[in-house]
Amino acid sequence: MRESELLAHIFQRSAGIEDGSILVGPGDDCAVVRTPGGDALLLTVDQLIEGRHFRPGTDVDLIGRKAVARSVSDIAAMGGRPLWGLGTGALPSEDTRGDALFDAMAKWAKRFGCPLVGGDIASTDGPLSLTVTVVGTVDGKPLLRSDARVGDGVYVTGSIGGSLDADGGGRHLTFEPRVAEGLALRDTLRERLGAMIDLSDGLGRDGWRIASRSGVRVEIEIERVPLSSGASDGLEAMRQGEDYELLFSARGNVPGEVAGTHVTRIGRVVEGEGCVALLADGGTVDLREAGWDHA
Amino acid sequence: MRESELLAHIFQRSAGIEDGSILVGPGDDCAVVRTPGGDALLLTVDQLIEGRHFRPGTDVDLIGRKAVARSVSDIAAMGGRPLWGLGTGALPSEDTRGDALFDAMAKWAKRFGCPLVGGDIASTDGPLSLTVTVVGTVDGKPLLRSDARVGDGVYVTGSIGGSLDADGGGRHLTFEPRVAEGLALRDTLRERLGAMIDLSDGLGRDGWRIASRSGVRVEIEIERVPLSSGASDGLEAMRQGEDYELLFSARGNVPGEVAGTHVTRIGRVVEGEGCVALLADGGTVDLREAGWDHA
Repeated sequence: MRESELLAHIFQRSAGIEDGSILVGPGDDCAVVRTPGGDALLLTVDQLIEGRHFRPGTDVDLIGRKAVARSVSDIAAMGGRPLWGLGTGALPSEDTRGDALFDAMAKWAKRFGCPLVGGDIASTDGPLSLTVTVVGTVDGKPLLRSDARVGDGVYVTGSIGGSLDADGGGRHLTFEPRVAEGLALRDTLRERLGAMIDLSDGLGRDGWRIASRSGVRVEIEIERVPLSSGASDGLEAMRQGEDYELLFSARGNVPGEVAGTHVTRIGRVVEGEGCVALLADGGTVDLREAGWDHA
Repeated sequence: MRESELLAHIFQRSAGIEDGSILVGPGDDCAVVRTPGGDALLLTVDQLIEGRHFRPGTDVDLIGRKAVARSVSDIAAMGGRPLWGLGTGALPSEDTRGDALFDAMAKWAKRFGCPLVGGDIASTDGPLSLTVTVVGTVDGKPLLRSDARVGDGVYVTGSIGGSLDADGGGRHLTFEPRVAEGLALRDTLRERLGAMIDLSDGLGRDGWRIASRSGVRVEIEIERVPLSSGASDGLEAMRQGEDYELLFSARGNVPGEVAGTHVTRIGRVVEGEGCVALLADGGTVDLREAGWDHA
């Protein structure tokens, strides 16, 4: 079973576990829970495995950075702020990177606003594996994948594609989680802001997730998609993943820049289902499978 | 670097990160943080790796159970209650246990009071690896490793030793986290309760942790240590790990049973340092290294 299928299955099984303290269960970028005292908290965890999410030989500081940044990006996608982190590392027995890795995770967690408050380390016969849990907070309503409405415009921060360089480096290791942008969009657009997701598995697949969860159709005008310097083909860029930009829907005027980052209108929300690219020649491409399955 | 050394190093480096929102940083069973609204939360994460923490061929339900129970035990050791869980799984590509494992984790997390609200799944070239993060809450002061005082008695819940059967089964897979016992001890003993820890790495090593963090000496009378049916030698039992019982110090009368579980006085806190076993012949054994290093 593929990652996305299994997660979907887990989500279905967990549907309905929402109760007084669980506001949003599995299936969005973060879970949303309510503490006994009434705080809304965001909870998320991600894994980073050598050979899957970064190549052997990658700089230790960038490995630690990416491990933290991926989870922080999930907090950003809910319009939240990170508060604290927990890190785990499973290292091959003879691996000497443990100390430097935890140093890097601690440094970047602090930098991204969620200092590491705990963790665990173990040895493994497998590849180096890290997990980072981040707890965040959100003021007011969290931004969900399910809140796109017919008539919304579809927008993306920054640019997409070419995140993974030919040598294994690139923006997937150095991206800045869009926390400030998510907060600024909330403040600026308020109730005009619709759905939001961070682009981890490709604009096509993540756009499809918004469409699916919102019960709408998302149309992307391929010529409007802002491409990164390493990307030249729009469809190809939408098939790549690890952009960690924010994809969102909104009504009314949306500023062209938030928190110093460009915002581009790339499409619209219409009645129907699925996520399609509108080509210059009038054709369409179904984007459901146009993404990268991490597994 | 061994697990315990590396964690100690991480702890030293992180000392002093406590601020308004971080009440207890790395180095205890859980971190303790304060939410913007003032709730005290407990955060903990543990890993479970095939071939290290359970043998290949172990029943999938018991693997999922142990993954959750270990983290819940950390919550119990702070005198807290579990609220929510996050689970990750890294599975070999051809491994078909993913769905059953997440079912098991979800089932046991719910059973133990911390329903899974999210998670992540990935494939790996290494062994099956799980992590479970648990968020809990604590009413009043959390129970720390550092609060043992000279004159305290030293107590343990249940019995110890023999947790791992010769065939790889045993209590390390089926133990009940001592959440109810931790809560009952708080309610009963209140300010007379001192330090507390859960026994994951052996009574010797975990007793030494209390001694070290509290700046005291812990003396265990070996003949008083309650042995499980699979254990016959007290010193050996203290060297084994994975008891997941509560070890604590307290002043004044302590009931012989809490929440249906036996409580046994096994020693005392005196001036000095280290953790030693007092033998029947008057000799002593330094217990600092008498434990199991998970790594």
